Amino acid sequence: MSDYPSQILEQAVNQMASLPGVGRRTALRLVLNLLRRNEQDVDAFANAFIRLKHEVVYCSVCHNISDTAMCPICSSSRRDHATICVVENVQDVMSIENTGQYTGVYHVLGGIISPMEGVGPKDIQVDSLMERVASGEVKEVILALPTTMEGDTTNFYIYRRIRNLEMPEMPKISQIARGVAVGNQLEYTDEITLGRSIVNRTEFIA
Amino acid sequence: MSDYPSQILEQAVNQMASLPGVGRRTALRLVLNLLRRNEQDVDAFANAFIRLKHEVVYCSVCHNISDTAMCPICSSSRRDHATICVVENVQDVMSIENTGQYTGVYHVLGGIISPMEGVGPKDIQVDSLMERVASGEVKEVILALPTTMEGDTTNFYIYRRIRNLEMPEMPKISQIARGVAVGNQLEYTDEITLGRSIVNRTEFIA
Repeated sequence: MSDYPSQILEQAVNQMASLPGVGRRTALRLVLNLLRRNEQDVDAFANAFIRLKHEVVYCSVCHNISDTAMCPICSSSRRDHATICVVENVQDVMSIENTGQYTGVYHVLGGIISPMEGVGPKDIQVDSLMERVASGEVKEVILALPTTMEGDTTNFYIYRRIRNLEMPEMPKISQIARGVAVGNQLEYTDEITLGRSIVNRTEFIA
Repeated sequence: MSDYPSQILEQAVNQMASLPGVGRRTALRLVLNLLRRNEQDVDAFANAFIRLKHEVVYCSVCHNISDTAMCPICSSSRRDHATICVVENVQDVMSIENTGQYTGVYHVLGGIISPMEGVGPKDIQVDSLMERVASGEVKEVILALPTTMEGDTTNFYIYRRIRNLEMPEMPKISQIARGVAVGNQLEYTDEITLGRSIVNRTEFIA
């Protein structure tokens, strides 16, 4: 697709196609959908992103996205502030929140260590995690990073940093369980996952 | 997905998910991608759509999208203004232009007659097409609508309206060759098939 009948249309398509996974043909379809809406709706569409970029902040404690200097989870007196769940990004916080199984607080690294992509420990929020742990009020750090080489590297880096803090009472360091996903067939589960699920078996409670 | 950590984020996700075919999970991913860009880039992204809605116009002759009152095709002295290709929408003009097989002008109906969706002849740009044909300067009208029941209905309606004009010399009415697979949209047809279907257009037989 080339030769747009309008430069303004082409610029809008270029911007839409700058989103990851959106091709030029899809971008054109989305832009023409916008063009069929009234001015007020298009302004609301566009201003939502301007407002997002200009007004949204990152929580000063856990680095989650927030409308206020401290996010609702870090501000809540109903959460267990002695348990910190370390995640890669904002989506992970939302996924864990949706399980309804976690009452502690979070720490959003904003990435994981990946030498291949040039992401080192200084590029993610590890130092502020160490400050939180060093305060002495943290009883447990739960590592909830992806089961990849990068995730394992980051887990090990954080583990070492915490061990080096030399506190009078060290926090417990745990990681989320790895095993066969609920509803999955054993024969379609990869060997490493299946192997770990046997080694890390839990007591059967009827 | 619910319980967004930020209302501003949630509003941005809602707007992104208002685009056709974009689910809430994808919308969140796209919005977080925007959030990682700098302010200038996000403003450019948003302003492209505001500008599109406020500045883009429809060509006063053919109703194609345009930056000027008359589109580049209708303004061109190198196009054959005695041949009008009738299409459903803007994408169709771009698709036919990309074949490089057509030197005439267009007429964008902005839809096709669909009783199921409540689209009648008054909802699409047929009257202005009749005005163009009634001027007596049109030698041929090429019907290039989708090969669907709605397309056939619209073809037949336009054919009858032209026949009823009672002009001294009637324009030839043709339709693109049925090389386009039945049920397919023009914008998803490959260029060679679409190009041939214009070259091999056949007389419209009611």
